Amino acid sequence: MSELRRDPILRRWVIMAPERTRDLVSRRAEVPPPDGSGPCPFCPGNEHLNPDEIAVMPATRPWSVRVTPDKRPLLRIEGDPDRRAAGMFDVMNPIGAHELVTDTPEHEVAWAEFTAADMIRLLEMYRARTIDLRGDRRFRHVFVLKNHGAVWSRFAHAHSHVIATPFTPKRLEEELAGAREYHRMHERCVFCDQLTEEVRTGARVVARNREFVTFTPFASEYPYEMWIAPLRHAADFGTISDAALEPLAELLVDALARLRDGLDDPPYSVVLHAGPLDGSDRAEFHWHWELVPHLGHELGMEWATGIFSNPVLPEDAVQRLVAARPAPHRPD
Amino acid sequence: MSELRRDPILRRWVIMAPERTRDLVSRRAEVPPPDGSGPCPFCPGNEHLNPDEIAVMPATRPWSVRVTPDKRPLLRIEGDPDRRAAGMFDVMNPIGAHELVTDTPEHEVAWAEFTAADMIRLLEMYRARTIDLRGDRRFRHVFVLKNHGAVWSRFAHAHSHVIATPFTPKRLEEELAGAREYHRMHERCVFCDQLTEEVRTGARVVARNREFVTFTPFASEYPYEMWIAPLRHAADFGTISDAALEPLAELLVDALARLRDGLDDPPYSVVLHAGPLDGSDRAEFHWHWELVPHLGHELGMEWATGIFSNPVLPEDAVQRLVAARPAPHRPD
Repeated sequence: MSELRRDPILRRWVIMAPERTRDLVSRRAEVPPPDGSGPCPFCPGNEHLNPDEIAVMPATRPWSVRVTPDKRPLLRIEGDPDRRAAGMFDVMNPIGAHELVTDTPEHEVAWAEFTAADMIRLLEMYRARTIDLRGDRRFRHVFVLKNHGAVWSRFAHAHSHVIATPFTPKRLEEELAGAREYHRMHERCVFCDQLTEEVRTGARVVARNREFVTFTPFASEYPYEMWIAPLRHAADFGTISDAALEPLAELLVDALARLRDGLDDPPYSVVLHAGPLDGSDRAEFHWHWELVPHLGHELGMEWATGIFSNPVLPEDAVQRLVAARPAPHRPD
Repeated sequence: MSELRRDPILRRWVIMAPERTRDLVSRRAEVPPPDGSGPCPFCPGNEHLNPDEIAVMPATRPWSVRVTPDKRPLLRIEGDPDRRAAGMFDVMNPIGAHELVTDTPEHEVAWAEFTAADMIRLLEMYRARTIDLRGDRRFRHVFVLKNHGAVWSRFAHAHSHVIATPFTPKRLEEELAGAREYHRMHERCVFCDQLTEEVRTGARVVARNREFVTFTPFASEYPYEMWIAPLRHAADFGTISDAALEPLAELLVDALARLRDGLDDPPYSVVLHAGPLDGSDRAEFHWHWELVPHLGHELGMEWATGIFSNPVLPEDAVQRLVAARPAPHRPD
């Protein structure tokens, strides 16, 4: 039985998901099983294997992006959180949305190989899901998460996750707390100020177009970490205009192609912090994508203390990433 | 050139340590190099290869525990933090202590194999280092970190780290913030209350003796995570009595032997949160050890959102850990 448990010291909700257990111990040494021997439930023609359609684009066949419920969801769409005490502890039901996005009809293709048109359709779908989930008052935040080349991945077919949570996730809480304090001090958005500084110095800019900038943040926690953010302030990804989808698609594919070419196609994760669903913090928050390659980084101290040590200066990382693709992305 | 950079949004210090760079990219697929072909600088008789002794116990040869500076330190003992602005950003020098502890004269032996006497000597050394580092007013926190079986480990010889930081690490900041708020609400220590609850229900107790308890916390972030804490309130590990060293040594070795026997000897990390060095938060903080095995856990969502999902309920984890060693540790 899944439940959300709150750590009484760290004040953080942890998803207890024993229904997802595989044998972690024996799994250590093995490559996880691929999709299995049956047909891929995400390929066109096999929709009956994965029938509960949440959304599809375009509405007429053939589809290019399709959203279905995750069959082993971390969070469940039905029910009420039912917040309650358990002795001195706090628990609630694991309510939320955990949607699985089939990124493309093609079975196995990386985002770095996507055409601009492929990526625009996918971004349109994320925008639509963000707007739809906003209507559910139980939810506070929504994320898009894409893992590439991860050993723990369950499916070979290109897929990503849309997750809405009934609490503010720790990482967002930290971003919001910092953004609010900065706004109290300066009455400006801290993300806007950082973007202005990054564009001014140029020392960490990977690529840029009219609407967006890709950069390696000044205090990057991970080597070759990149952020992509709109140059003009916007708290909510759901409000992105049609015209802005193409320049965003361009920089996303570009950044991932740079990881592939510059770092020997590492596994990576990509996340969209789409903004608070209740419309709060509109002056303070600024939606953005974060991208990190998984390079076998040392985990001990980070786990033990929350201190990250980064062996690659962002100013050095940017040089390798820029050199990976000499054209066609240049500042205008 | 190393430096500490503060993330302007997350308000977290990141250690930029480019001097420690190895080629992260090519490293991904490889097993890291062992100590090299030369003699081990941590074995008795080779002290001249590692001559800068910070502390040694006992003072007369043969030594059983020896502390030397880490030769590729994340933080450096000399100098002043020199906090300063860099445009809109904040930086300081990477001042701190990064000491390498040779845990035992034996070349390769796990803590799970230690005799009580071995572990008592090591704990004595950690106590002495904690007290000594307290005298340096530049430092705020001290940690002991032990990694076992990690692919990123640099040395085969049994070793651990003592690290003192000129800032409060994020993880401690979170623990302290939670402990302070709980204390404001209840005027009690949240750690004490949690220990009382864990001992009362017994549902997550792995082992216990007069002075200490080992348990799998209610909201464990990681599968098979354990904590070991003193049953009586104590904020500062530096004040542990001689008499308490043996029961602590007993439970530490016991817990790691349970990981070895119950989980097929996984890699693990162990950390001591020894308490604020300036003597603050004496009523709120409670020193403790945290132990986590590294079981190939999924990292994507944790990185992306700070949300942990744990596929093993702590009440199930405790059963496997208890069954791993039927005797001799029982409640008194």
